[in-house]
Amino acid sequence: MTPERLRRLRATLARRQPDLSVIMDGVHKPHNIAAVVRTCDAVGVLELHAALPNNRARDTVRTALGSQRWVNVREHHDGEEAIRAARKRGLQVLAAHWSDQAVPYREVDYTQPTALLLGTERTGVDATSAAAADRHVFIPMMGMVSSFNVSVAAAIILAEACEQRRAAGLYDRSRLSEAQHRDTLFKWAHP
Amino acid sequence: MTPERLRRLRATLARRQPDLSVIMDGVHKPHNIAAVVRTCDAVGVLELHAALPNNRARDTVRTALGSQRWVNVREHHDGEEAIRAARKRGLQVLAAHWSDQAVPYREVDYTQPTALLLGTERTGVDATSAAAADRHVFIPMMGMVSSFNVSVAAAIILAEACEQRRAAGLYDRSRLSEAQHRDTLFKWAHP
Ligand SMILES: C[S@@+](CC[C@H](N)C(=O)[O-])C[C@H]1O[C@@H](n2cnc3c(N)ncnc32)[C@H](O)[C@@H]1O
Ligand SMILES: C[S@@+](CC[C@H](N)C(=O)[O-])C[C@H]1O[C@@H](n2cnc3c(N)ncnc32)[C@H](O)[C@@H]1O
Repeated sequence: MTPERLRRLRATLARRQPDLSVIMDGVHKPHNIAAVVRTCDAVGVLELHAALPNNRARDTVRTALGSQRWVNVREHHDGEEAIRAARKRGLQVLAAHWSDQAVPYREVDYTQPTALLLGTERTGVDATSAAAADRHVFIPMMGMVSSFNVSVAAAIILAEACEQRRAAGLYDRSRLSEAQHRDTLFKWAHP
Repeated sequence: MTPERLRRLRATLARRQPDLSVIMDGVHKPHNIAAVVRTCDAVGVLELHAALPNNRARDTVRTALGSQRWVNVREHHDGEEAIRAARKRGLQVLAAHWSDQAVPYREVDYTQPTALLLGTERTGVDATSAAAADRHVFIPMMGMVSSFNVSVAAAIILAEACEQRRAAGLYDRSRLSEAQHRDTLFKWAHP
């Protein structure tokens, strides 16, 4: 590893947000998973939570998750378990979910410790996860089709979170614990 | 067609933005094309311009474009031709392109007549299109990977355009010419 490369890893680590997370609740198409993970890296998500689908897609999801490198992934049995884990770490859980109680995504304060929950491609956020989330957020739509692609919806909301966190200076000083810094640097430097 | 369905089509048409367009300059993966078109529908793009790749992907792109319904598509030989066509209709051409001259995407006024140009999955915006565009815009990135998925980048910028246009009331009154309204309604009602 060149000194420059090591500097680059450290600089990126110094921008990682331990209190901004994503829960993929049953998302199963590999290209969507890849796009979500790539966006997580770009906005500084340290850790991604995946509730694995309970069907044939399970192994595909595992493979798709295994091939990525810059975001730590934790697997969960289902959405509820992932939500409980997020809340235990002090995060508010926002479900990206068009419901009666949903608020427009730009009205939320993403500088608060936050996990964004995404639903599956076909059926969206299921009733159990919707009930377990703290709030629902939606992205207004002006057209005929009634939802965005899931990786697109994730990106629109995470881009707003990123903008708010930039404005608040949350990328300007390292926010990781010593253990988080050390463990993640080790993983990145020794793949 | 039920009266309710017809009302829905008219209401959506009344939100269409004839002066907000997208140029896909060589984008060729079907799932990316599908996601871009879906996002275009959701933010009210009336017309999408596709510069077809000059290789084996050409037919795949044609097929992917043919299967969508709510956004009018114009095909072009290359990016330059698409840019010329956009400019002829009075649109500023913004290339989503990370260059020395690029400005952060949130600093741009998207209530102006605008076409957003997107580059290919592998090599991005080529030199000719970059030179022909009026401005370059970029989305800040905090991670290790050096670009977003193209449909994700499109969505992040178009969501900002949508937000600005909502705030400016551009979705509150019909903005189509009589001919645009008539022709598009005919196409939508008689697929
Ligand atoms: C393709 S959508 C699911 C569509 C499903 N038919 C439904 O009714 O929920 C996949 C996921 O993307 C997210 N999503 C898509 N469009 C959204 C929007 N306009 N607002 C908030 N989240 C959205 C949600 O997390 C959703 O579960
Ligand atoms: C996967 S990227 C192309 C990456 C290519 N290696 C390059 O260097 O340009 C595909 C397209 O998405 C858009 N894009 C991706 N990330 C972007 C960003 N951070 N800012 C602006 N546009 C971006 C651009 O239009 C780009 O041409």
